[in-house]
Amino acid sequence: MAECSLKYEVIARDGAARCGRLVTKHGTVETPVFMPVGTNATVKMMTPEMLRTTGATMILGNAYHLSLRPGEDVIARLGGLHGFMNWDGPILTDSGGYQVFSLAKLRRITDEGVEFQSHIDGATLMMPPARAVDIQEALGADVIMACDECVAYPAAPETARKAMERTIAWAERSRAAHKRADQALFGIVQGSVFESQRRECARRLVEIGFDGYAIGGLSVGEGAGLMNETLGWTVPELPADRPRYLMGVGTPEDIIASAAAGVDMFDCVMPARNARNACVFTRYGKVRLRNARHRDDPRPIDADCECPTCRGYSRAYMRHLFMAGESLAGMLATLHNMWFYQNLMRELRGAITDGCLEAFTGRFLADFARGDEERG
Amino acid sequence: MAECSLKYEVIARDGAARCGRLVTKHGTVETPVFMPVGTNATVKMMTPEMLRTTGATMILGNAYHLSLRPGEDVIARLGGLHGFMNWDGPILTDSGGYQVFSLAKLRRITDEGVEFQSHIDGATLMMPPARAVDIQEALGADVIMACDECVAYPAAPETARKAMERTIAWAERSRAAHKRADQALFGIVQGSVFESQRRECARRLVEIGFDGYAIGGLSVGEGAGLMNETLGWTVPELPADRPRYLMGVGTPEDIIASAAAGVDMFDCVMPARNARNACVFTRYGKVRLRNARHRDDPRPIDADCECPTCRGYSRAYMRHLFMAGESLAGMLATLHNMWFYQNLMRELRGAITDGCLEAFTGRFLADFARGDEERG
Repeated sequence: MAECSLKYEVIARDGAARCGRLVTKHGTVETPVFMPVGTNATVKMMTPEMLRTTGATMILGNAYHLSLRPGEDVIARLGGLHGFMNWDGPILTDSGGYQVFSLAKLRRITDEGVEFQSHIDGATLMMPPARAVDIQEALGADVIMACDECVAYPAAPETARKAMERTIAWAERSRAAHKRADQALFGIVQGSVFESQRRECARRLVEIGFDGYAIGGLSVGEGAGLMNETLGWTVPELPADRPRYLMGVGTPEDIIASAAAGVDMFDCVMPARNARNACVFTRYGKVRLRNARHRDDPRPIDADCECPTCRGYSRAYMRHLFMAGESLAGMLATLHNMWFYQNLMRELRGAITDGCLEAFTGRFLADFARGDEERG
Repeated sequence: MAECSLKYEVIARDGAARCGRLVTKHGTVETPVFMPVGTNATVKMMTPEMLRTTGATMILGNAYHLSLRPGEDVIARLGGLHGFMNWDGPILTDSGGYQVFSLAKLRRITDEGVEFQSHIDGATLMMPPARAVDIQEALGADVIMACDECVAYPAAPETARKAMERTIAWAERSRAAHKRADQALFGIVQGSVFESQRRECARRLVEIGFDGYAIGGLSVGEGAGLMNETLGWTVPELPADRPRYLMGVGTPEDIIASAAAGVDMFDCVMPARNARNACVFTRYGKVRLRNARHRDDPRPIDADCECPTCRGYSRAYMRHLFMAGESLAGMLATLHNMWFYQNLMRELRGAITDGCLEAFTGRFLADFARGDEERG
């Protein structure tokens, strides 16, 4: 295996939480970091310039989606994912394990890999772990993911173990297939909500040795309590000098709790998807912009927010755009929600650095639960 | 009637064509000007910042649409159309005559005004000419339009005359209803493709006296030849010291021909609508981005174009976005097409100022007809 190009350094701690720096050849990322999801080589409704404005530094792409359309060969010929989508910052690509789990039809999972039907044209395709690595090497992201098997929640212990064993076997094969020295490879811990499986999976992946470690198979319905418990078993098994990435998480509350447990990296479609559905985040909770109470409301989404949407537009205008089905609605709401998430991460990093994460968490959760309706 | 706040000055001529300056309280506009259409208080898929980037100075709103949703009262309470949509440049609102003609159902046109069913909720509404002015005064645009009756093409001379007479009667009533001194009021010349009607309508509107004159009822299927003939009868009847606005036009070819005939202002949904349908403009004609030939094409839409889309993205990426149904496709394509139109207007103004409009026109049309396929 090639030597890793990814440098990671812890710069502050508060309990199990930490702030760090992830150095990639496309720039340095401060952690804990929230990575907006750009599945199809675009973060929905955002130009890269708009995304930069929010403070985003690192984004996600998806090997499953991009290999089906437009094909990783096309992207490779056009300068890789960075050049193709005009994003010169760090990128992480997911291997597609979760997408096969959630999107593909008639999938058959064997030790050889995953057989699935494309959700685009129905073609039957086989994705062995080495192929997932090849695709990601062609895409050229800074961080790529080993292939894993994600199980639904709840899963019987035997089912979870089988998927966990397969995940480890695939991690080994992903590791062996990995050639590009300028890309970091992360292993993914599975094991559902079973302590022994999570600990064992983490230990065995660490034995294989990866540039970073992801925690997969969470936020699939187990609830915040079980997710936090699972993090409590998993994180301590991971090396302190390597980044930890909690996949697909999540709500502001989940991100804060997981960062407190020692997680460094996050991604989630929630801020963008909610925005497209007229649901925006404020310090005092979520606001639904289609609500009739906003018809004449001259206030911005969040009076405390400095994003371009809140500086330029009223709730009444946002409601109008959503009611009229205008794309600008989703564009401005996405910009705001992305800003909200990046601002949350800035505050979180500040709180960890200042050693006051507990106080920050208490205040944030109290405000966030208070509800926008009661403001004035 | 209040004194007009709109100043217009001719600064260069080339044949019948002219360059001018339109001074409004929201800024100065160089003419000939192309005004992007922001029917619902948004130019589709563009933030005001993106729109500014293209060189757009003045935009359109629509009284018919905005009175139905969100209601001109809402917009008035929120600072008028400028504040509501966060556009601090000049705005023109159309009265809605054309929208009643094209969108509304069960319309019944009487001398009193237009009775129509809302295309949004089916409610039956009456729009007398004074009401169209009231709505536009509440919206607060810099230029507002008198109410007119647009006839389909072809129209019998008697049908066209009846609509033309009604247009003049409504123009008088619009004029009488007009109170806001800071808004200019334009009359609209109708008369289908009949020389005597167009000349008579123009003369009678000039007798009433407006701050500017629009030419309506063209680009409704009569073809470029008849449109140019009609302009040739109409424009000479209009005062040289007032701006002339050709409504709903048009293609690059139509704009060039109409500017040569002495028209100063244009609007059309074409650049934005084409963009959303993956049809983009280049110096060498239109390009359809969904075409398979662009699958691997590393070139920008137009190698000569300096817009952010052409500076940042390949045709292959644009095609991918359209195939994947991603909003960024329409955003980037709209940005490009709007830039193309504004660039065309810049070149047109330059050609008029330099007295070489004929040479410019010949070169532009030859290039534009050449076709992108043959480039290299």
